[in-house]
Amino acid sequence: MRLSPRQALILFAVGAAGGLIGDACHVATGTTTYLDDTFPFIWNSQLWFPIAVGFATVATGEVRLRLGPPRPGDNPIEAAAAIASVVALYALTAVVSDEDPLTASVLIWSLAVVIAARFGGGIPALVCAVLAAILGPLAEILIVEAELAMYAPSADGLFGVAEWLPALYFAFGIVAARLAELTTDL
Amino acid sequence: MRLSPRQALILFAVGAAGGLIGDACHVATGTTTYLDDTFPFIWNSQLWFPIAVGFATVATGEVRLRLGPPRPGDNPIEAAAAIASVVALYALTAVVSDEDPLTASVLIWSLAVVIAARFGGGIPALVCAVLAAILGPLAEILIVEAELAMYAPSADGLFGVAEWLPALYFAFGIVAARLAELTTDL
Amino acid sequence: MRLSPRQALILFAVGAAGGLIGDACHVATGTTTYLDDTFPFIWNSQLWFPIAVGFATVATGEVRLRLGPPRPGDNPIEAAAAIASVVALYALTAVVSDEDPLTASVLIWSLAVVIAARFGGGIPALVCAVLAAILGPLAEILIVEAELAMYAPSADGLFGVAEWLPALYFAFGIVAARLAELTTDL
Repeated sequence: MRLSPRQALILFAVGAAGGLIGDACHVATGTTTYLDDTFPFIWNSQLWFPIAVGFATVATGEVRLRLGPPRPGDNPIEAAAAIASVVALYALTAVVSDEDPLTASVLIWSLAVVIAARFGGGIPALVCAVLAAILGPLAEILIVEAELAMYAPSADGLFGVAEWLPALYFAFGIVAARLAELTTDL
Repeated sequence: MRLSPRQALILFAVGAAGGLIGDACHVATGTTTYLDDTFPFIWNSQLWFPIAVGFATVATGEVRLRLGPPRPGDNPIEAAAAIASVVALYALTAVVSDEDPLTASVLIWSLAVVIAARFGGGIPALVCAVLAAILGPLAEILIVEAELAMYAPSADGLFGVAEWLPALYFAFGIVAARLAELTTDL
Repeated sequence: MRLSPRQALILFAVGAAGGLIGDACHVATGTTTYLDDTFPFIWNSQLWFPIAVGFATVATGEVRLRLGPPRPGDNPIEAAAAIASVVALYALTAVVSDEDPLTASVLIWSLAVVIAARFGGGIPALVCAVLAAILGPLAEILIVEAELAMYAPSADGLFGVAEWLPALYFAFGIVAARLAELTTDL
Protein backbone atom coordinates (compact mmCIF):
# COMPACT_ATOMS: atom_id res chain seq x y z
CA MET A 1 0.00 0.00 0.00
CA ARG A 2 1.25 3.47 -0.88
CA LEU A 3 -0.65 5.18 1.93
CA SER A 4 1.12 5.07 5.29
CA PRO A 5 -0.98 3.55 8.12
CA ARG A 6 -1.20 6.99 9.74
CA GLN A 7 -2.27 8.57 6.46
CA ALA A 8 -4.89 5.85 5.86
CA LEU A 9 -6.25 6.40 9.36
CA ILE A 10 -6.59 10.15 8.77
CA LEU A 11 -8.35 9.61 5.42
CA PHE A 12 -10.68 7.04 7.01
CA ALA A 13 -11.55 9.38 9.89
CA VAL A 14 -12.13 12.40 7.63
CA GLY A 15 -14.27 10.37 5.22
CA ALA A 16 -16.33 8.75 7.98
CA ALA A 17 -16.91 12.10 9.72
CA GLY A 18 -17.81 13.86 6.47
CA GLY A 19 -20.13 11.01 5.52
CA LEU A 20 -21.87 11.18 8.90
CA ILE A 21 -22.41 14.95 8.62
CA GLY A 22 -23.65 14.87 5.03
CA ASP A 23 -25.84 11.79 5.59
CA ALA A 24 -27.40 13.44 8.66
CA CYS A 25 -28.52 16.28 6.32
CA HIS A 26 -29.89 13.81 3.77
CA VAL A 27 -31.87 11.94 6.43
CA ALA A 28 -33.06 15.09 8.21
CA THR A 29 -34.43 16.55 4.97
CA GLY A 30 -35.95 13.27 3.82
CA THR A 31 -33.60 13.14 0.82
CA THR A 32 -32.80 9.58 1.88
CA THR A 33 -34.47 7.19 4.30
CA TYR A 34 -33.03 4.05 5.87
CA LEU A 35 -35.38 1.09 5.41
CA ASP A 36 -33.39 -1.32 7.58
CA ASP A 37 -32.20 -0.98 11.18
CA THR A 38 -30.19 -4.19 11.50
CA PHE A 39 -27.21 -2.23 12.76
CA PRO A 40 -27.18 0.51 15.39
CA PHE A 41 -27.61 4.09 14.27
CA ILE A 42 -24.75 6.55 14.69
CA TRP A 43 -26.43 9.99 14.66
CA ASN A 44 -28.79 9.68 11.66
CA SER A 45 -26.84 6.92 9.84
CA GLN A 46 -26.77 3.14 9.98
CA LEU A 47 -23.35 2.04 11.29
CA TRP A 48 -22.18 0.74 7.91
CA PHE A 49 -22.57 4.09 6.12
CA PRO A 50 -19.70 6.08 7.69
CA ILE A 51 -17.50 2.96 7.57
CA ALA A 52 -18.19 2.60 3.84
CA VAL A 53 -17.42 6.29 3.16
CA GLY A 54 -14.26 6.02 5.26
CA PHE A 55 -13.02 3.02 3.26
CA ALA A 56 -13.99 4.73 -0.02
CA THR A 57 -11.87 7.72 1.00
CA VAL A 58 -8.90 5.47 1.77
CA ALA A 59 -9.36 3.55 -1.49
CA THR A 60 -9.55 6.77 -3.52
CA GLY A 61 -6.43 8.10 -1.79
CA GLU A 62 -4.56 4.86 -2.51
CA VAL A 63 -5.57 4.99 -6.19
CA ARG A 64 -4.38 8.60 -6.32
CA LEU A 65 -0.90 7.73 -5.03
CA ARG A 66 -0.57 4.79 -7.42
CA LEU A 67 -1.40 7.04 -10.39
CA GLY A 68 1.58 9.34 -9.94
CA PRO A 69 3.72 11.29 -7.51
CA PRO A 70 1.71 13.63 -5.27
CA ARG A 71 2.15 17.37 -5.57
CA PRO A 72 4.38 18.36 -2.66
CA GLY A 73 3.18 20.35 0.32
CA ASP A 74 1.37 19.91 3.61
CA ASN A 75 -1.18 22.66 3.94
CA PRO A 76 -3.87 22.28 6.61
CA ILE A 77 -5.76 25.36 5.31
CA GLU A 78 -5.98 23.79 1.84
CA ALA A 79 -7.18 20.54 3.42
CA ALA A 80 -9.84 22.37 5.44
CA ALA A 81 -11.02 24.24 2.35
CA ALA A 82 -11.22 21.03 0.30
CA ILE A 83 -13.16 19.16 2.99
CA ALA A 84 -15.50 22.10 3.64
CA SER A 85 -16.18 22.46 -0.10
CA VAL A 86 -17.43 18.91 -0.51
CA VAL A 87 -19.40 19.01 2.77
CA ALA A 88 -21.07 22.24 1.55
CA LEU A 89 -21.93 20.51 -1.73
CA TYR A 90 -23.31 17.52 0.22
CA ALA A 91 -25.55 19.80 2.33
CA LEU A 92 -26.61 21.70 -0.80
CA THR A 93 -27.82 18.44 -2.40
CA ALA A 94 -30.08 18.00 0.65
CA VAL A 95 -31.46 21.53 0.17
CA VAL A 96 -32.17 21.09 -3.56
CA SER A 97 -33.37 17.47 -3.41
CA ASP A 98 -36.99 18.61 -3.79
CA GLU A 99 -36.20 20.95 -6.69
CA ASP A 100 -36.51 20.12 -10.37
CA PRO A 101 -33.96 17.26 -10.91
CA LEU A 102 -32.45 18.78 -14.05
CA THR A 103 -31.81 22.12 -12.35
CA ALA A 104 -30.43 20.43 -9.23
CA SER A 105 -28.11 18.31 -11.39
CA VAL A 106 -26.83 21.29 -13.39
CA LEU A 107 -26.19 23.22 -10.17
CA ILE A 108 -24.37 20.37 -8.42
CA TRP A 109 -22.36 19.36 -11.52
CA SER A 110 -21.24 22.93 -12.25
CA LEU A 111 -20.18 23.43 -8.63
CA ALA A 112 -18.38 20.06 -8.73
CA VAL A 113 -16.42 21.35 -11.75
CA VAL A 114 -15.56 24.55 -9.82
CA ILE A 115 -14.31 22.39 -6.92
CA ALA A 116 -12.33 20.20 -9.35
CA ALA A 117 -10.72 23.24 -10.98
CA ARG A 118 -9.70 24.55 -7.56
CA PHE A 119 -8.48 21.37 -5.85
CA GLY A 120 -7.89 18.88 -8.66
CA GLY A 121 -4.39 17.96 -9.83
CA GLY A 122 -4.34 16.86 -13.44
CA ILE A 123 -5.09 13.40 -14.82
CA PRO A 124 -4.60 11.40 -11.57
CA ALA A 125 -7.22 13.48 -9.74
CA LEU A 126 -9.54 13.29 -12.75
CA VAL A 127 -9.28 9.49 -12.84
CA CYS A 128 -10.12 9.33 -9.12
CA ALA A 129 -13.11 11.64 -9.67
CA VAL A 130 -14.49 9.69 -12.65
CA LEU A 131 -14.05 6.36 -10.83
CA ALA A 132 -15.87 7.78 -7.79
CA ALA A 133 -18.63 9.24 -9.99
CA ILE A 134 -19.26 5.77 -11.48
CA LEU A 135 -18.64 3.41 -8.55
CA GLY A 136 -20.25 5.53 -5.82
CA PRO A 137 -23.69 5.80 -7.44
CA LEU A 138 -23.41 2.15 -8.55
CA ALA A 139 -22.89 1.08 -4.93
CA GLU A 140 -25.84 3.20 -3.83
CA ILE A 141 -28.03 1.71 -6.58
CA LEU A 142 -27.25 -1.73 -5.12
CA ILE A 143 -28.11 -0.44 -1.62
CA VAL A 144 -31.46 0.80 -2.94
CA GLU A 145 -32.03 -2.48 -4.81
CA ALA A 146 -31.34 -4.36 -1.56
CA GLU A 147 -33.99 -2.20 0.11
CA LEU A 148 -31.60 -1.00 2.79
CA ALA A 149 -32.35 2.65 1.99
CA MET A 150 -34.28 4.77 -0.50
CA TYR A 151 -34.16 8.21 -2.06
CA ALA A 152 -37.14 10.58 -1.97
CA PRO A 153 -39.45 10.32 -5.02
CA SER A 154 -38.29 13.81 -6.09
CA ALA A 155 -34.68 12.59 -6.26
CA ASP A 156 -34.65 8.96 -7.37
CA GLY A 157 -34.56 9.30 -11.16
CA LEU A 158 -31.21 7.59 -11.74
CA PHE A 159 -32.05 3.91 -11.21
CA GLY A 160 -33.46 4.75 -7.80
CA VAL A 161 -30.76 7.20 -6.69
CA ALA A 162 -30.56 10.96 -7.22
CA GLU A 163 -29.71 12.43 -10.61
CA TRP A 164 -27.08 14.69 -9.00
CA LEU A 165 -25.37 11.82 -7.11
CA PRO A 166 -22.55 11.28 -9.68
CA ALA A 167 -21.64 14.98 -9.39
CA LEU A 168 -21.38 14.74 -5.60
CA TYR A 169 -19.15 11.65 -5.89
CA PHE A 170 -17.07 13.40 -8.58
CA ALA A 171 -16.30 16.21 -6.12
CA PHE A 172 -15.67 13.59 -3.40
CA GLY A 173 -13.10 11.88 -5.65
CA ILE A 174 -11.28 15.16 -6.31
CA VAL A 175 -11.14 16.02 -2.61
CA ALA A 176 -10.13 12.51 -1.46
CA ALA A 177 -7.29 12.56 -4.02
CA ARG A 178 -6.19 16.00 -2.80
CA LEU A 179 -6.23 14.86 0.83
CA ALA A 180 -4.04 11.88 -0.10
CA GLU A 181 -1.54 14.37 -1.53
CA LEU A 182 -1.77 16.77 1.40
CA THR A 183 -1.20 14.02 3.99
CA THR A 184 1.76 12.44 2.20
CA ASP A 185 4.33 13.91 4.58
CA LEU A 186 2.39 13.00 7.73
CA MET B 1 -12.49 41.62 -36.25
CA ARG B 2 -9.99 40.97 -33.48
CA LEU B 3 -11.27 37.46 -32.76
CA SER B 4 -9.85 34.79 -35.04
CA PRO B 5 -12.52 32.70 -36.86
CA ARG B 6 -11.55 29.69 -34.77
CA GLN B 7 -11.78 31.72 -31.57
CA ALA B 8 -15.17 33.16 -32.55
CA LEU B 9 -16.45 29.65 -33.27
CA ILE B 10 -15.33 28.43 -29.83
CA LEU B 11 -16.97 31.39 -28.10
CA PHE B 12 -20.18 30.86 -30.08
CA ALA B 13 -20.28 27.15 -29.24
CA VAL B 14 -19.58 27.68 -25.53
CA GLY B 15 -22.17 30.45 -25.29
CA ALA B 16 -24.83 28.50 -27.18
CA ALA B 17 -24.23 25.36 -25.07
CA GLY B 18 -24.23 27.30 -21.79
CA GLY B 19 -27.38 29.14 -22.85
CA LEU B 20 -29.13 25.87 -23.68
CA ILE B 21 -28.21 24.32 -20.32
CA GLY B 22 -29.21 27.36 -18.26
CA ASP B 23 -32.40 27.99 -20.23
CA ALA B 24 -33.39 24.34 -19.79
CA CYS B 25 -33.24 24.96 -16.00
CA HIS B 26 -35.29 28.16 -16.32
CA VAL B 27 -37.97 26.41 -18.38
CA ALA B 28 -38.00 23.25 -16.24
CA THR B 29 -38.54 25.27 -13.05
CA GLY B 30 -41.11 27.59 -14.63
CA THR B 31 -38.82 30.58 -14.15
CA THR B 32 -39.45 31.38 -17.82
CA THR B 33 -42.03 30.12 -20.29
CA TYR B 34 -41.95 30.35 -24.08
CA LEU B 35 -45.20 31.81 -25.44
CA ASP B 36 -44.38 31.24 -29.11
CA ASP B 37 -43.35 28.08 -30.94
CA THR B 38 -42.69 29.53 -34.40
CA PHE B 39 -39.27 27.89 -34.45
CA PRO B 40 -38.38 24.34 -33.49
CA PHE B 41 -37.39 23.63 -29.91
CA ILE B 42 -33.85 22.50 -29.12
CA TRP B 43 -34.12 20.75 -25.75
CA ASN B 44 -36.26 23.23 -23.76
CA SER B 45 -35.37 26.33 -25.82
CA GLN B 46 -36.70 27.97 -28.96
CA LEU B 47 -34.03 27.74 -31.68
CA TRP B 48 -33.22 31.47 -31.56
CA PHE B 49 -32.24 31.46 -27.87
CA PRO B 50 -28.94 29.54 -28.00
CA ILE B 51 -28.06 31.34 -31.25
CA ALA B 52 -28.60 34.71 -29.55
CA VAL B 53 -26.48 33.73 -26.51
CA GLY B 54 -23.77 32.40 -28.83
CA PHE B 55 -23.62 35.68 -30.76
CA ALA B 56 -23.70 37.67 -27.49
CA THR B 57 -20.69 35.69 -26.30
CA VAL B 58 -18.81 36.41 -29.53
CA ALA B 59 -19.76 40.11 -29.38
CA THR B 60 -18.63 40.40 -25.75
CA GLY B 61 -15.34 38.67 -26.58
CA GLU B 62 -14.77 41.02 -29.53
CA VAL B 63 -15.45 44.06 -27.34
CA ARG B 64 -12.99 42.70 -24.77
CA LEU B 65 -10.17 42.40 -27.32
CA ARG B 66 -10.81 45.91 -28.69
CA LEU B 67 -10.58 47.38 -25.17
CA GLY B 68 -6.99 46.30 -24.57
CA PRO B 69 -4.42 43.55 -24.89
CA PRO B 70 -5.55 40.25 -23.35
CA ARG B 71 -3.76 38.88 -20.32
CA PRO B 72 -1.47 36.15 -21.68
CA GLY B 73 -2.03 32.47 -21.06
CA ASP B 74 -4.04 29.53 -22.33
CA ASN B 75 -5.40 27.66 -19.37
CA PRO B 76 -8.20 25.14 -19.98
CA ILE B 77 -8.71 24.65 -16.20
CA GLU B 78 -9.30 28.38 -15.77
CA ALA B 79 -11.72 28.33 -18.72
CA ALA B 80 -13.62 25.36 -17.25
CA ALA B 81 -13.86 27.08 -13.86
CA ALA B 82 -15.10 30.33 -15.43
CA ILE B 83 -17.75 28.56 -17.53
CA ALA B 84 -18.86 26.35 -14.62
CA SER B 85 -19.16 29.39 -12.33
CA VAL B 86 -21.60 31.20 -14.57
CA VAL B 87 -23.58 28.01 -15.34
CA ALA B 88 -23.86 27.41 -11.56
CA LEU B 89 -25.11 30.98 -11.11
CA TYR B 90 -27.61 30.43 -13.97
CA ALA B 91 -28.96 27.25 -12.32
CA LEU B 92 -29.07 29.01 -8.94
CA THR B 93 -31.30 31.74 -10.40
CA ALA B 94 -33.73 28.98 -11.39
CA VAL B 95 -33.68 27.60 -7.83
CA VAL B 96 -34.29 31.00 -6.17
CA SER B 97 -36.75 32.36 -8.75
CA ASP B 98 -39.65 31.72 -6.37
CA GLU B 99 -37.89 33.29 -3.39
CA ASP B 100 -38.27 36.88 -2.22
CA PRO B 101 -36.95 38.98 -5.18
CA LEU B 102 -34.79 41.26 -3.00
CA THR B 103 -33.05 38.31 -1.33
CA ALA B 104 -32.60 36.52 -4.65
CA SER B 105 -31.10 39.68 -6.16
CA VAL B 106 -28.69 40.26 -3.26
CA LEU B 107 -27.58 36.61 -3.44
CA ILE B 108 -27.05 36.60 -7.22
CA TRP B 109 -25.38 40.06 -7.28
CA SER B 110 -22.97 39.22 -4.46
CA LEU B 111 -22.01 35.93 -6.12
CA ALA B 112 -21.58 37.80 -9.43
CA VAL B 113 -19.11 40.11 -7.66
CA VAL B 114 -17.24 37.08 -6.28
CA ILE B 115 -17.05 35.67 -9.84
CA ALA B 116 -15.90 39.06 -11.17
CA ALA B 117 -13.19 39.31 -8.49
CA ARG B 118 -11.95 35.83 -9.41
CA PHE B 119 -12.10 35.95 -13.22
CA GLY B 120 -12.30 39.62 -14.11
CA GLY B 121 -9.35 41.52 -15.53
CA GLY B 122 -9.49 45.21 -14.77
CA ILE B 123 -11.39 47.90 -16.65
CA PRO B 124 -11.87 46.02 -19.97
CA ALA B 125 -13.63 43.13 -18.21
CA LEU B 126 -15.68 45.56 -16.13
CA VAL B 127 -16.84 47.40 -19.27
CA CYS B 128 -17.89 44.08 -20.84
CA ALA B 129 -19.78 43.14 -17.67
CA VAL B 130 -21.60 46.47 -17.37
CA LEU B 131 -22.54 46.44 -21.06
CA ALA B 132 -23.87 42.88 -20.70
CA ALA B 133 -25.76 43.81 -17.50
CA ILE B 134 -27.54 46.61 -19.39
CA LEU B 135 -28.00 45.20 -22.90
CA GLY B 136 -28.87 41.61 -21.91
CA PRO B 137 -31.87 42.47 -19.71
CA LEU B 138 -32.89 45.16 -22.25
CA ALA B 139 -33.02 42.52 -24.99
CA GLU B 140 -35.03 40.20 -22.75
CA ILE B 141 -37.47 43.02 -21.88
CA LEU B 142 -38.08 43.41 -25.63
CA ILE B 143 -38.62 39.64 -25.94
CA VAL B 144 -41.19 39.79 -23.13
CA GLU B 145 -42.82 42.87 -24.70
CA ALA B 146 -43.06 40.96 -28.00
CA GLU B 147 -44.83 38.15 -26.10
CA LEU B 148 -42.31 35.56 -27.22
CA ALA B 149 -41.61 34.50 -23.64
CA MET B 150 -42.48 35.47 -20.06
CA TYR B 151 -40.99 35.30 -16.59
CA ALA B 152 -42.88 33.75 -13.67
CA PRO B 153 -44.94 36.24 -11.62
CA SER B 154 -42.51 35.76 -8.71
CA ALA B 155 -39.61 36.93 -10.89
CA ASP B 156 -40.86 39.56 -13.31
CA GLY B 157 -40.45 42.76 -11.29
CA LEU B 158 -37.93 44.48 -13.57
CA PHE B 159 -40.12 45.59 -16.50
CA GLY B 160 -41.29 42.01 -16.94
CA VAL B 161 -37.94 40.27 -16.43
CA ALA B 162 -36.33 39.04 -13.21
CA GLU B 163 -34.81 41.47 -10.73
CA TRP B 164 -31.62 39.35 -10.59
CA LEU B 165 -31.22 39.22 -14.40
CA PRO B 166 -28.66 42.10 -14.61
CA ALA B 167 -26.45 40.28 -12.08
CA LEU B 168 -26.52 37.08 -14.15
CA TYR B 169 -25.58 39.02 -17.31
CA PHE B 170 -22.86 40.87 -15.37
CA ALA B 171 -21.23 37.52 -14.52
CA PHE B 172 -21.77 36.40 -18.13
CA GLY B 173 -19.90 39.49 -19.36
CA ILE B 174 -16.97 38.80 -17.03
CA VAL B 175 -16.73 35.18 -18.13
CA ALA B 176 -17.15 35.89 -21.87
CA ALA B 177 -14.36 38.49 -21.63
CA ARG B 178 -12.12 35.99 -19.80
CA LEU B 179 -12.81 33.30 -22.43
CA ALA B 180 -11.82 35.76 -25.17
CA GLU B 181 -8.49 36.21 -23.36
CA LEU B 182 -7.99 32.50 -22.73
CA THR B 183 -8.62 31.54 -26.37
CA THR B 184 -6.37 34.23 -27.85
CA ASP B 185 -3.58 31.80 -28.69
CA LEU B 186 -5.89 29.21 -30.24
CA MET C 1 -6.62 52.93 18.93
CA ARG C 2 -4.69 51.13 16.22
CA LEU C 3 -7.20 51.93 13.49
CA SER C 4 -6.77 55.35 11.92
CA PRO C 5 -9.91 57.54 12.03
CA ARG C 6 -10.25 57.23 8.27
CA GLN C 7 -9.88 53.44 8.46
CA ALA C 8 -12.44 53.20 11.28
CA LEU C 9 -14.87 55.28 9.25
CA ILE C 10 -14.48 52.96 6.23
CA LEU C 11 -15.00 49.85 8.37
CA PHE C 12 -18.06 51.43 10.02
CA ALA C 13 -19.58 52.39 6.65
CA VAL C 14 -18.94 48.97 5.08
CA GLY C 15 -20.32 47.16 8.12
CA ALA C 16 -23.41 49.35 8.37
CA ALA C 17 -24.13 49.03 4.64
CA GLY C 18 -23.59 45.25 4.65
CA GLY C 19 -25.77 44.92 7.74
CA LEU C 20 -28.56 46.93 6.10
CA ILE C 21 -28.47 44.80 2.95
CA GLY C 22 -28.38 41.47 4.78
CA ASP C 23 -30.99 42.50 7.34
CA ALA C 24 -33.30 43.65 4.54
CA CYS C 25 -33.15 40.06 3.19
CA HIS C 26 -33.84 38.60 6.64
CA VAL C 27 -36.85 40.88 7.15
CA ALA C 28 -38.18 40.43 3.60
CA THR C 29 -38.11 36.62 3.92
CA GLY C 30 -39.55 36.63 7.45
CA THR C 31 -36.33 35.13 8.84
CA THR C 32 -36.40 37.92 11.43
CA THR C 33 -39.13 40.34 12.51
CA TYR C 34 -38.76 43.58 14.44
CA LEU C 35 -41.15 43.68 17.41
CA ASP C 36 -40.38 47.28 18.39
CA ASP C 37 -40.51 50.47 16.35
CA THR C 38 -39.16 52.95 18.92
CA PHE C 39 -36.60 54.19 16.43
CA PRO C 40 -37.15 55.07 12.79
CA PHE C 41 -36.69 52.35 10.17
CA ILE C 42 -33.87 52.65 7.63
CA TRP C 43 -34.97 50.45 4.72
CA ASN C 44 -36.15 47.27 6.54
CA SER C 45 -34.05 47.79 9.70
CA GLN C 46 -34.51 49.64 12.97
CA LEU C 47 -31.95 52.49 13.14
CA TRP C 48 -29.84 50.77 15.81
CA PHE C 49 -29.15 47.65 13.70
CA PRO C 50 -26.78 49.08 11.04
CA ILE C 51 -25.11 51.22 13.73
CA ALA C 52 -24.46 48.11 15.83
CA VAL C 53 -23.06 46.17 12.87
CA GLY C 54 -20.89 49.17 11.95
CA PHE C 55 -19.42 49.37 15.44
CA ALA C 56 -18.94 45.59 15.55
CA THR C 57 -16.96 45.83 12.31
CA VAL C 58 -14.76 48.59 13.76
CA ALA C 59 -14.28 46.65 17.02
CA THR C 60 -13.33 43.47 15.14
CA GLY C 61 -10.88 45.42 12.98
CA GLU C 62 -9.31 47.01 16.07
CA VAL C 63 -8.93 43.59 17.73
CA ARG C 64 -7.32 42.28 14.56
CA LEU C 65 -4.66 45.03 14.51
CA ARG C 66 -3.90 44.54 18.22
CA LEU C 67 -3.32 40.81 17.68
CA GLY C 68 -0.42 41.24 15.27
CA PRO C 69 0.96 43.11 12.29
CA PRO C 70 -1.39 43.12 9.28
CA ARG C 71 -0.40 41.31 6.12
CA PRO C 72 0.78 44.06 3.74
CA GLY C 73 -1.13 45.12 0.67
CA ASP C 74 -4.02 47.32 -0.40
CA ASN C 75 -6.15 45.38 -2.83
CA PRO C 76 -9.63 46.71 -3.61
CA ILE C 77 -10.51 43.55 -5.60
CA GLU C 78 -9.70 41.38 -2.58
CA ALA C 79 -11.80 43.69 -0.39
CA ALA C 80 -14.73 43.51 -2.81
CA ALA C 81 -14.50 39.71 -2.94
CA ALA C 82 -14.38 39.45 0.87
CA ILE C 83 -17.37 41.75 1.36
CA ALA C 84 -19.38 40.07 -1.41
CA SER C 85 -18.65 36.62 0.07
CA VAL C 86 -20.12 37.44 3.46
CA VAL C 87 -23.09 39.32 1.94
CA ALA C 88 -23.79 36.25 -0.22
CA LEU C 89 -23.65 34.05 2.88
CA TYR C 90 -26.01 36.48 4.67
CA ALA C 91 -28.53 36.32 1.80
CA LEU C 92 -28.17 32.53 1.66
CA THR C 93 -29.13 32.27 5.35
CA ALA C 94 -32.37 34.10 4.44
CA VAL C 95 -33.03 31.60 1.63
CA VAL C 96 -32.42 28.51 3.81
CA SER C 97 -34.05 29.83 7.00
CA ASP C 98 -37.11 27.65 6.39
CA GLU C 99 -35.07 24.54 5.63
CA ASP C 100 -34.15 21.82 8.11
CA PRO C 101 -31.98 23.64 10.73
CA LEU C 102 -29.26 20.97 10.79
CA THR C 103 -28.83 21.06 7.01
CA ALA C 104 -28.88 24.86 6.96
CA SER C 105 -26.24 24.94 9.70
CA VAL C 106 -23.96 22.45 7.95
CA LEU C 107 -24.27 24.41 4.70
CA ILE C 108 -23.56 27.81 6.28
CA TRP C 109 -20.73 26.50 8.52
CA SER C 110 -18.98 24.71 5.66
CA LEU C 111 -19.21 27.79 3.45
CA ALA C 112 -17.93 29.91 6.37
CA VAL C 113 -14.89 27.62 6.53
CA VAL C 114 -14.36 28.04 2.77
CA ILE C 115 -14.51 31.83 3.24
CA ALA C 116 -12.10 31.61 6.19
CA ALA C 117 -9.65 29.49 4.20
CA ARG C 118 -9.74 32.04 1.39
CA PHE C 119 -9.61 35.33 3.31
CA GLY C 120 -8.39 34.41 6.79
CA GLY C 121 -4.86 35.18 7.95
CA GLY C 122 -3.69 32.78 10.63
CA ILE C 123 -4.35 32.96 14.36
CA PRO C 124 -5.29 36.68 14.57
CA ALA C 125 -8.11 36.24 12.02
CA LEU C 126 -9.22 33.03 13.73
CA VAL C 127 -9.44 34.80 17.11
CA CYS C 128 -11.55 37.56 15.53
CA ALA C 129 -13.83 34.95 13.94
CA VAL C 130 -14.30 32.93 17.13
CA LEU C 131 -14.98 36.07 19.18
CA ALA C 132 -17.55 37.21 16.60
CA ALA C 133 -19.14 33.73 16.51
CA ILE C 134 -19.64 33.88 20.30
CA LEU C 135 -20.40 37.55 20.97
CA GLY C 136 -22.58 38.20 17.91
CA PRO C 137 -25.18 35.49 18.62
CA LEU C 138 -24.99 36.37 22.36
CA ALA C 139 -25.91 39.98 21.56
CA GLU C 140 -28.78 38.80 19.34
CA ILE C 141 -30.02 36.44 22.06
CA LEU C 142 -30.25 39.47 24.38
CA ILE C 143 -32.12 41.40 21.65
CA VAL C 144 -34.60 38.52 21.36
CA GLU C 145 -34.90 38.28 25.17
CA ALA C 146 -35.64 42.02 25.27
CA GLU C 147 -38.42 41.41 22.71
CA LEU C 148 -36.98 43.92 20.26
CA ALA C 149 -36.94 41.32 17.47
CA MET C 150 -37.57 37.63 16.87
CA TYR C 151 -36.45 34.85 14.56
CA ALA C 152 -38.95 32.73 12.62
CA PRO C 153 -40.04 29.53 14.40
CA SER C 154 -38.14 27.50 11.77
CA ALA C 155 -34.88 29.28 12.71
CA ASP C 156 -34.94 30.03 16.42
CA GLY C 157 -33.49 26.85 17.90
CA LEU C 158 -30.38 28.41 19.49
CA PHE C 159 -31.85 30.19 22.53
CA GLY C 160 -34.23 32.05 20.25
CA VAL C 161 -31.80 32.82 17.43
CA ALA C 162 -30.94 30.77 14.35
CA GLU C 163 -28.76 27.67 14.62
CA TRP C 164 -26.61 28.93 11.72
CA LEU C 165 -26.06 32.39 13.26
CA PRO C 166 -22.61 31.60 14.79
CA ALA C 167 -21.39 30.49 11.34
CA LEU C 168 -22.52 33.77 9.76
CA TYR C 169 -20.75 35.76 12.48
CA PHE C 170 -17.65 33.57 12.09
CA ALA C 171 -17.44 34.56 8.42
CA PHE C 172 -18.15 38.18 9.41
CA GLY C 173 -15.19 38.10 11.84
CA ILE C 174 -12.87 36.75 9.15
CA VAL C 175 -13.92 39.41 6.65
CA ALA C 176 -13.85 42.30 9.14
CA ALA C 177 -10.31 41.27 10.13
CA ARG C 178 -9.27 41.10 6.49
CA LEU C 179 -10.74 44.54 5.77
CA ALA C 180 -8.78 45.96 8.71
CA GLU C 181 -5.63 44.60 7.04
CA LEU C 182 -6.57 45.79 3.58
CA THR C 183 -7.31 49.36 4.74
CA THR C 184 -4.13 49.73 6.83
CA ASP C 185 -2.40 51.93 4.28
CA LEU C 186 -5.41 54.17 3.72
